[in-house]
Amino acid sequence: MNKERLLPNVNLERETRSCIYCRSIHDGVTRFCNKLRDFSRKALDVGRNDPRKTIYAIKMGFALSLVSLLIFFREPLPDISHSIWAILTVIVMFEFSIGATFIKGFNRGIGTFLAGMLAILFAALSVCVGTWFGGEWEKAVIVISFFVTGSFGSYLRFYPSMAPYDYGFRVFVLTYCILMVAGNRTRDYAQAIISRLVLFAVGGFVCFLVNMCIYPIWSGDDLESLVVNNLKELATSLEGCVNGYLKYVDYARTSTRFSTHQAFDDQLLHGYKTVIESATTEQNLLGFAVWEPPHGKYRKVYNPWKSYVKVSIAIRHCAYTVMALHGCILSEIQAPSEKRQVFRNQLQLVSTEGAKVLRELGKRIEKMEKLGTNENILKQVHEVAEQLQKTIDQRSYLLVNSESWKIGNKSNKELKGRDDLGKENKTLHTGFKSQSETAVYVKSPLLLASNRDFPKKNKQLRKHAPWPSWISFQGVDLIKEDEVKTFKSASALSLATFASLLIEFVARLQNVVDCFEELSEKAEFKDPNVVSTSDTRV
Amino acid sequence: MNKERLLPNVNLERETRSCIYCRSIHDGVTRFCNKLRDFSRKALDVGRNDPRKTIYAIKMGFALSLVSLLIFFREPLPDISHSIWAILTVIVMFEFSIGATFIKGFNRGIGTFLAGMLAILFAALSVCVGTWFGGEWEKAVIVISFFVTGSFGSYLRFYPSMAPYDYGFRVFVLTYCILMVAGNRTRDYAQAIISRLVLFAVGGFVCFLVNMCIYPIWSGDDLESLVVNNLKELATSLEGCVNGYLKYVDYARTSTRFSTHQAFDDQLLHGYKTVIESATTEQNLLGFAVWEPPHGKYRKVYNPWKSYVKVSIAIRHCAYTVMALHGCILSEIQAPSEKRQVFRNQLQLVSTEGAKVLRELGKRIEKMEKLGTNENILKQVHEVAEQLQKTIDQRSYLLVNSESWKIGNKSNKELKGRDDLGKENKTLHTGFKSQSETAVYVKSPLLLASNRDFPKKNKQLRKHAPWPSWISFQGVDLIKEDEVKTFKSASALSLATFASLLIEFVARLQNVVDCFEELSEKAEFKDPNVVSTSDTRV
Repeated sequence: MNKERLLPNVNLERETRSCIYCRSIHDGVTRFCNKLRDFSRKALDVGRNDPRKTIYAIKMGFALSLVSLLIFFREPLPDISHSIWAILTVIVMFEFSIGATFIKGFNRGIGTFLAGMLAILFAALSVCVGTWFGGEWEKAVIVISFFVTGSFGSYLRFYPSMAPYDYGFRVFVLTYCILMVAGNRTRDYAQAIISRLVLFAVGGFVCFLVNMCIYPIWSGDDLESLVVNNLKELATSLEGCVNGYLKYVDYARTSTRFSTHQAFDDQLLHGYKTVIESATTEQNLLGFAVWEPPHGKYRKVYNPWKSYVKVSIAIRHCAYTVMALHGCILSEIQAPSEKRQVFRNQLQLVSTEGAKVLRELGKRIEKMEKLGTNENILKQVHEVAEQLQKTIDQRSYLLVNSESWKIGNKSNKELKGRDDLGKENKTLHTGFKSQSETAVYVKSPLLLASNRDFPKKNKQLRKHAPWPSWISFQGVDLIKEDEVKTFKSASALSLATFASLLIEFVARLQNVVDCFEELSEKAEFKDPNVVSTSDTRV
Repeated sequence: MNKERLLPNVNLERETRSCIYCRSIHDGVTRFCNKLRDFSRKALDVGRNDPRKTIYAIKMGFALSLVSLLIFFREPLPDISHSIWAILTVIVMFEFSIGATFIKGFNRGIGTFLAGMLAILFAALSVCVGTWFGGEWEKAVIVISFFVTGSFGSYLRFYPSMAPYDYGFRVFVLTYCILMVAGNRTRDYAQAIISRLVLFAVGGFVCFLVNMCIYPIWSGDDLESLVVNNLKELATSLEGCVNGYLKYVDYARTSTRFSTHQAFDDQLLHGYKTVIESATTEQNLLGFAVWEPPHGKYRKVYNPWKSYVKVSIAIRHCAYTVMALHGCILSEIQAPSEKRQVFRNQLQLVSTEGAKVLRELGKRIEKMEKLGTNENILKQVHEVAEQLQKTIDQRSYLLVNSESWKIGNKSNKELKGRDDLGKENKTLHTGFKSQSETAVYVKSPLLLASNRDFPKKNKQLRKHAPWPSWISFQGVDLIKEDEVKTFKSASALSLATFASLLIEFVARLQNVVDCFEELSEKAEFKDPNVVSTSDTRV
């Protein structure tokens, strides 16, 4: 009876278990398929966003299959396995752009030559030692030579300026090992070394040929579009930051920002980060571009690529200010929204005009066009910045706590009672007073602690009142009125910070324009006036 | 006569010429020697600054010479040239830290396995095609397979998350080529592929063995010291920025700063840059550290390395503020020196206390010590920050142009005449007025244009008056008095910006302390109170 009652249960259990297995396998397969789909989609996007990457891959495949034909030439080469060294050279040396291939080829050439010399040296030494002291000592010399080469090669990788050639050192060590092993095998070091060096040369030649003749990719083009892109990104970022600052700020969201990397997820805001991070890429591209011969629209033998980088450095100088502007959005101390609205129009005008200048410069660089002789590209933006500064001047009572002025207490009180206060101003002034008492909304670390990045534990961890102590003053009367006032004025001053950073941005724009003008002279950009007159003649 | 008179000249010329040659050769040799000496000095410094790099290099040499012994085992291996593949594996796989070697080994293993599978697949296909359609078709299949592998391998290098595995892809393509060439040569694909895979495994095994057994280098240690170093660097940088701001600023020097990279040369100032740039290194180290088993002082199986990175992110959040502070030093719009001196003591106190907190946290992380239960590490710095804010509050008439207040004009004029103005305040207030008229010293783009980074040409290039137009107002009366006032107040507000950024820095310190407390909980740091009581017991 007991058995009968148990059996169905066991069966049921088995079925359930097998069902669970089925489901977990099914889930696993589904998840794998989804991942595969995601992967392919992203992989396709790479080529779609920059078709040159696809072309590069095809070129690489072509060069590889071209050099692999060597396998089948059995006649001139006694041992076809050697052809792998030509293949290895192609794999190691085939780079994206012409400039990079040139540099890589140059470095590879020097590295191979040095490895060859070193191999000949140690080979001669080992043979000598072998003849005099016996075969065992020859082996010892070879092993020691491997040790010395391996150690030095690895050590020099850490040399400060050698970081980009990291795998160049590996290739050097590898080449040395290949030559020694081959020589040791045939006992004819000279022949082994020379035949391999020839194969390396063949591989290098195929690399150059394929890379230069089929759809060459130029680092110079990349450098130019990087500069243009930086200008565009910064423009978007500037507008985004100002608009973001003026928008109502969701504090729960802001507080998570710093710890996760969401701060930079916002398309509109993260532009400046691209600009700041582009420094390394820029230096790399400059390094490649100076090796490239004239091509496309760059007809000068020594195109002033350095001036392009100078423009980019000036742009970065501006980007740091935009970064600081963004810092105001992420700030712990926030100015109340209604105060921001007072300066709304001026702030937005400055950002729009500033962005316009950046975009215009980008267009000029793309078209390789100078600024006109009577054109002051900065006129508009300077005007609106002056306007902003004037507005701040006229309304700076919103930014400071004039009540606590040691010299102004009494007269300010008088001021309040005066009849000549304009109605608008009255509202603003009193509005500020009343609002700031209710609307001191500062991102409290307590709020921060409660979000998912800061586990609940943290709440118990916190042993002291947070600072600035806004949050406590809303509920409990622990804080002295004195302190509250202090923090209120900090919040107001943060608006001054934002505005003054924006004005600083405008001041820095001058450097960008200066660098652009230097570039346009050196790279012999065309004069738009001349073009337009010749156009009208035609 | 003519000839005779000419000859000595020719001789003299010859002598002079040979002298010039001698000298130029001599100069060249001297220059080369100097460069070589510089190079060796720098190379030695690498090892002196981090002896682990020397140890790594020696380990690499040892692993290489160990695996090179395979060359001499002629018995089990029919063709000793194969042993090069074990050597190649060591060269490719031997990494600095244990974690990195683990990851590299894992990736290399997967890559080799995939390359092996692919090789077997294409080998079978080529043999089949060869049997059915003839030898020429077999070759075609091999060449096509090279093309396909080469193209896909190169294309996937560009896949966003694949950037760190760049040369992993090259190794994959290389492995495939090696297997195919070897198989094609002996016509026994299976045997060739397996023998090479075994050699790869031998190489990999030697790598692990040497790297783990001889002075293992841990990424976890590096990650910890990176975080500690970031704290120290930021502390130095904060103090440096505040002191730099308070010092007399040499404008000719400042103006060159942005274009050359001197801005970051100042040891005292560039610390924040190290902190900001450490993001990538940190992520890499985290990636390696999580693979590492417990070791040294980290006894936990899953040490919370992520919490270390979180602390570092919080530090970086502060570093952005220090960067903005440094931006004030490089700013186009500068506050007059005597106004800065008014806030001197408060600014310096805040920076000193802030730096103290950062350094203290660094020490605690090094010692793996918690904060005491009744310890408020931020108390001091909060107090001085409040003091600074109060001072700003009381003296904010220095920062704004109250004359232009729409609501305050008349009463402010009254204010000036009042008898109850303290003497100090009077001096300050009037001092500000008089000084700012003579001392509006803003880095003019004209000055900028005259320095070496901006060729003289630029002076002619500039077609319009610079902005802000301070410089012109000193000489010529072109600018309206109105505008002058506007810019004067911008210069004063820039001081407010500096102060409010410093207060923002203090507010952000809370996050660092929170993250530190989370880390100290998760990583089970020891409690200083408990330690001290046990110490006294002993």
